[in-house]
Amino acid sequence: MVEGAKSVLELLDSDFETVMLLGTEKFLQDTTLPEGCNVIAVSGKELEGLGEFRSNNGALAVAKMKKNSSPGVLPSEFVLMLDDISDPGNLGTIIRTADWFGIHKVICSEETADLYNPKVISATMGSFTRVSVFYADLASFLADSKLKVFGAFLEGEDIHRIGGVAGGIILIGSESHGIGSELERFVTTKLTIPRYGKAESLNAAVATAIICDHFRNSR
Amino acid sequence: MVEGAKSVLELLDSDFETVMLLGTEKFLQDTTLPEGCNVIAVSGKELEGLGEFRSNNGALAVAKMKKNSSPGVLPSEFVLMLDDISDPGNLGTIIRTADWFGIHKVICSEETADLYNPKVISATMGSFTRVSVFYADLASFLADSKLKVFGAFLEGEDIHRIGGVAGGIILIGSESHGIGSELERFVTTKLTIPRYGKAESLNAAVATAIICDHFRNSR
Repeated sequence: MVEGAKSVLELLDSDFETVMLLGTEKFLQDTTLPEGCNVIAVSGKELEGLGEFRSNNGALAVAKMKKNSSPGVLPSEFVLMLDDISDPGNLGTIIRTADWFGIHKVICSEETADLYNPKVISATMGSFTRVSVFYADLASFLADSKLKVFGAFLEGEDIHRIGGVAGGIILIGSESHGIGSELERFVTTKLTIPRYGKAESLNAAVATAIICDHFRNSR
Repeated sequence: MVEGAKSVLELLDSDFETVMLLGTEKFLQDTTLPEGCNVIAVSGKELEGLGEFRSNNGALAVAKMKKNSSPGVLPSEFVLMLDDISDPGNLGTIIRTADWFGIHKVICSEETADLYNPKVISATMGSFTRVSVFYADLASFLADSKLKVFGAFLEGEDIHRIGGVAGGIILIGSESHGIGSELERFVTTKLTIPRYGKAESLNAAVATAIICDHFRNSR
């Protein structure tokens, strides 16, 4: 389920199959309607009663979930790997951040929040249509992979001293436990985001963004 | 109201005045209790019934709110200024990020979420005890100030080309409208976080973190 005019327009423009579209008269008039989709005109008030949003300015759509598959990763691309990100808002924000930095694949542990949770979809701000999200057993995946793996730790190398990285897996630990020991052994480069104050840690989406920004801009 | 053993310990260690402390027997035994505070032993189940958290591992406290005051800002320090950040999770994450980067003051517009919203306090992960948060009329504040003001815009200067900044105001726009035109005229340097993909924008806390990380590490 996708809520809000902007996100629904991005859905209709993507390779997801929309099966039902509820929109205000104005939204439906202004929009190229998909074929084979059940379209229903509703009032704004009805929309708000149907979805999870407190306010909805135009549309709500239901699309088919994609089948989970196995991601192929090239050594020349960056992908994100999430070790048990449980907060839907964090997962959505991470997907949005990946999209900003041109990262097209996010590989999640099976304990990570569900992409199709409406709070995740909403926090992606439409980026779920451009970033492919996979769920996998991360330890098995890494055992079979020869890619570089970058992970943030408190005792790693200052990220600002690492340059010229062209691709690899950026591994993000869970909000409560960081990167699990089962996965830590696959990390080829331990990074640290330098700290100047006293917070014990950074939010997972915030740490992801700083790492992506650095890798994209230090090549 | 502060929930969770870790955050309550940070509260007790701060200059906030705690007026009521509810803790499990174990928490109260292990903790130096504040003077003049109403202390009540409760079960974990009772704690969860009282607070907003779904699970609470030890304590809940009620402290006096601080009076709002007018922030003094030195030209040699960084402060954050928030133009209508309405999401409590975003505000809390921004305060946590400020604490990580050793930024001690956050100046909020009057429309920004309330620091004392339990969701804000929780998202700071204890950093509300180390970062002072002020509410002010931002346009008046900036009109009276001679500080440098940095703001993120889509058409600004690549942040990675700006070095050697020793202090100033980092102005963060709202989630929905960015930096308002009333405040834009006070911005002395327009920054851009380079984009490599197709997301329209970054989450406000994420943008804050990338800017803080850059300023701290490019001096």
